[in-house]
Amino acid sequence: MSDRADRLAALVVEEGLDALLVSDLADLRWTCGFTGTSGLALVGPELRVFVTDFRYVEQAATEVAGFDRRRAPSELLDGLARVFPDRELRVGFDDASLTVARHAALLERLPANATAVAAGGLVARLRAVKEAAEVERIRAATALADDALEATLADGLAGRTERAVALALEVAIRERGAEAASFEPIVAAGARGALPHASPREVEIPRDTLVVVDWGARLDGYCSDCTRTLATGQVEAEAATVHALVDDARAAALAALRPGPTGKEIDAVARKLIDDAGYGERFGHGLGHGVGLEVHEGPRVARTGEAVLAAGNVVTIEPGVYLPDRFGVRIEDLAVVSDEGAEVLTGLDRTLRVV
Amino acid sequence: MSDRADRLAALVVEEGLDALLVSDLADLRWTCGFTGTSGLALVGPELRVFVTDFRYVEQAATEVAGFDRRRAPSELLDGLARVFPDRELRVGFDDASLTVARHAALLERLPANATAVAAGGLVARLRAVKEAAEVERIRAATALADDALEATLADGLAGRTERAVALALEVAIRERGAEAASFEPIVAAGARGALPHASPREVEIPRDTLVVVDWGARLDGYCSDCTRTLATGQVEAEAATVHALVDDARAAALAALRPGPTGKEIDAVARKLIDDAGYGERFGHGLGHGVGLEVHEGPRVARTGEAVLAAGNVVTIEPGVYLPDRFGVRIEDLAVVSDEGAEVLTGLDRTLRVV
Repeated sequence: MSDRADRLAALVVEEGLDALLVSDLADLRWTCGFTGTSGLALVGPELRVFVTDFRYVEQAATEVAGFDRRRAPSELLDGLARVFPDRELRVGFDDASLTVARHAALLERLPANATAVAAGGLVARLRAVKEAAEVERIRAATALADDALEATLADGLAGRTERAVALALEVAIRERGAEAASFEPIVAAGARGALPHASPREVEIPRDTLVVVDWGARLDGYCSDCTRTLATGQVEAEAATVHALVDDARAAALAALRPGPTGKEIDAVARKLIDDAGYGERFGHGLGHGVGLEVHEGPRVARTGEAVLAAGNVVTIEPGVYLPDRFGVRIEDLAVVSDEGAEVLTGLDRTLRVV
Repeated sequence: MSDRADRLAALVVEEGLDALLVSDLADLRWTCGFTGTSGLALVGPELRVFVTDFRYVEQAATEVAGFDRRRAPSELLDGLARVFPDRELRVGFDDASLTVARHAALLERLPANATAVAAGGLVARLRAVKEAAEVERIRAATALADDALEATLADGLAGRTERAVALALEVAIRERGAEAASFEPIVAAGARGALPHASPREVEIPRDTLVVVDWGARLDGYCSDCTRTLATGQVEAEAATVHALVDDARAAALAALRPGPTGKEIDAVARKLIDDAGYGERFGHGLGHGVGLEVHEGPRVARTGEAVLAAGNVVTIEPGVYLPDRFGVRIEDLAVVSDEGAEVLTGLDRTLRVV
């Protein structure tokens, strides 16, 4: 952990800052290990300050090492009083998560010789490259989520409601020791599968249709994310064709995934296959995203993904084709970028499985 | 719904503004009925504009009436182009939820004759006074949550882990048709009950101890919130005494609850009883808070509650006494403020129940 604060302090200096105020809770957990819901840290070459309120003082004492820990009154920023060295200072803050009101509160409390500088995404940049222990946690969350799906599918799909399947999946995830599902599972049958973010309905899943299931587990703070498209019997020929196409796109992108290309370039590999097959307009979202303490984090593997991929990135590869009022197919694997290419963490089969 | 936008527009004018940008998702749901996760509204005397992205266009068409609905590219604020009338304008924004980065994006897109003005909490102020239909939804969520607890307690408490009980309670909530639990249920036995925000552990609940259970259901978007402190057999004399004291404080506060006093004054009623009994320092949190689309919203019923209570407020009354390393007691009811006083929505008994 203290290595992380050191790396962050180095990045802070590289960005021309003297300190960074870490306010986003996932950033805070990454930086100093704190898992509570009320805290702040100030990190710079000479600064390791952590502030929380009375509810978390004990918890912070066991979780947060290597920081000067302070207890604040109701306004956490007051815990930073007399912390700043007495000289000209540039203090970065996370403009992507700090609200305008909290920013105003920060400005009121900074000493006169300090300037607040928008510096969003610095911790996120470090978080995007996972340490080996982080990869192991994501691997464990993925294995748990794989197993939870198998347990849920053992009772079949047809005849159960989307909502009942989603709830059973979430219970299976929690019973296996996960803190929670990474997000509300998606269970979308037939035409509903054509809406990439459909909520499960109180509607029975029919026979002979496709069902998109998108789910994940959060274990020890780390998330997994996976999608499978299953069949409840015979499906129309085009559904099987599209499933095979989407799976080819997934496999091609995973084969291309390695340190060096940008997220955009990997997205293009999958998109070209789908484009060439005439379904380009039916793939309306990005190919993937980073996963870690949050289920959506950096790097982007999408048309907007300008960052170069690096060993240690953990990303989803999740092409999809959505035919309005007919069906949808999405197949999503989670993979670690390594010097040898991509290692897929998801263990489940990708062929069109009939349940 | 359109009545709500009209009331909001009137408040906007009262605050010296020409329009308000509604960006917080609960505020947005209240203002225009949208339940998705990506949207913005602009409301003023002459303005009813709603913006969402491609994922929610269809959903918005069924949910959002009385607004000029627009589809935005990836940046929702771009959907407001050419919306502003060509004159001097003061546009309010919610500084309590808008991030510094989104605020900068807003400033870039406002026409030159418009000024952005921090105006947090305007929708929240209206949301704090519930309409009859909203009270009915909260009443239904409360009845569902009451019933879910009874079902969970039918299997007893002693011998089950805190985590197993919390999961069973959450499943019971969901099986009864709730969208979700309002928050992760708290199940805290013995000394753990002395931590007001304890997470459930993989630890068996022993016999002859107190167990604090704090839970709620979200149904049709509206939350419930309730706490009961139960016994798993014989408990020490002081535990029973403290339970009776906390229940007296709860009853006294509910008896005082009506339109007119501030939240602070109701907090003081409960606090005085607990103070007089010598446990004042062991009641370290506010007495209660508003509940609605969010499980924590206005008005505050705490030492910081300066707002005058009004008919239609729905608030928790939840005094607690926490003896470190020994036990905790909290008893929480949900009540509607009406001209006749307070109507308690929670149906469960408050006596120290042995499970």
